[in-house]
Amino acid sequence: MRIALLGGTGDIGQGLALRWAYDTNHEVLIGSRDPERAREKAEEYETELDSRGVDSEIQGFANEMAADRAAVVVAAVPAYHLVDTVEAVADRLGDAVLVSPAVGMKRDDDGLHYNRPGAGSVTALAAEAAPEDVPVVGAFHNLAAGRLADLDASFEWDTLLVGDDEDAKGIVADLAEGIEGLRALDAGGLANAAEVESVTPLLINVARENDGFHDLGVRFE
Amino acid sequence: MRIALLGGTGDIGQGLALRWAYDTNHEVLIGSRDPERAREKAEEYETELDSRGVDSEIQGFANEMAADRAAVVVAAVPAYHLVDTVEAVADRLGDAVLVSPAVGMKRDDDGLHYNRPGAGSVTALAAEAAPEDVPVVGAFHNLAAGRLADLDASFEWDTLLVGDDEDAKGIVADLAEGIEGLRALDAGGLANAAEVESVTPLLINVARENDGFHDLGVRFE
Repeated sequence: MRIALLGGTGDIGQGLALRWAYDTNHEVLIGSRDPERAREKAEEYETELDSRGVDSEIQGFANEMAADRAAVVVAAVPAYHLVDTVEAVADRLGDAVLVSPAVGMKRDDDGLHYNRPGAGSVTALAAEAAPEDVPVVGAFHNLAAGRLADLDASFEWDTLLVGDDEDAKGIVADLAEGIEGLRALDAGGLANAAEVESVTPLLINVARENDGFHDLGVRFE
Repeated sequence: MRIALLGGTGDIGQGLALRWAYDTNHEVLIGSRDPERAREKAEEYETELDSRGVDSEIQGFANEMAADRAAVVVAAVPAYHLVDTVEAVADRLGDAVLVSPAVGMKRDDDGLHYNRPGAGSVTALAAEAAPEDVPVVGAFHNLAAGRLADLDASFEWDTLLVGDDEDAKGIVADLAEGIEGLRALDAGGLANAAEVESVTPLLINVARENDGFHDLGVRFE
């Protein structure tokens, strides 16, 4: 399957790109507002994979071009760029599934807090910005980007999927479980996204407050 | 240590009472608004423990009397009874640490959602209702009561502690880790409680949406 990572030059995009290229046969496209930057990062990822004996072909494009070519489009951008990014590629999505991993957070002296948008969740913002017939799935919210992007690191994490289109959710679940150590769990409809997104600041707070804990993910058991 | 479980006749109170009596030497007091009901449940817990060869002494009291006698007071009541319960025992808390495990939730067709109170969190509500010099620790929010109360069941769960008094948090962490399979992690100050409480509806949604998952807890790794 061909997967476009809009904002694939950022930290979560890098992690997903490297893991899919390393663990699966999916074709990964790196998107960026700056196509030259996308090409540079795609080459950097290829070099990293090549050093591990994996002959991958990762290409870089402007976000619109990446979205145009893919069956699954992951908006791997910060929450404050999400709406702009989705709107910019809206007429290129075709039959693609749009995946939203972004979380809004604000920091104060106590740590990070979930910054719930008026739409109810950041995933709901993505759904509002997307064309009505494009299924939106929230996923990959709670992955520690640093550990994900370090192919020497392993994990046993869950990723929680929210969305109102069960077929689309099934496609994203299969993509997620292609990554070694990642288990996809269904957290229900889009309306359940806020509780999923809230886990991200919690993971960062727990890592900050406990010695020896860093780059945390979560496991339901 | 002597621990009072206000609302110790309810499901999370039962689980904590049985586990502390089974796994530790702490003395457990069951509190209820109805002291007769507290005594009945205390006897029921003793019988359950006796059937497993554990000779425990669990006593039942009115909430005020239970709070008066304990070093740690757990307000194991539903969120909508929390403020009344804390106010009723406020002048009996003395030097005790007050522990709040309650979470406010609302249900709709999609599942359960976190119902954040105006105070910022349910734990913050408990802190507002308690006398100013009583340290309040949020803990035990994310434990599946049914599995906790089933002494044949095991788990490897984390419980997240929030609070502004580090000594009090240390006391509660030790109590938590006395329960086999439970690890206490610091999630920072009281201001971080909402993200901890939000995990509870998420656990219930995930259990509802995935075959073979029930009575879930969470593990950070």
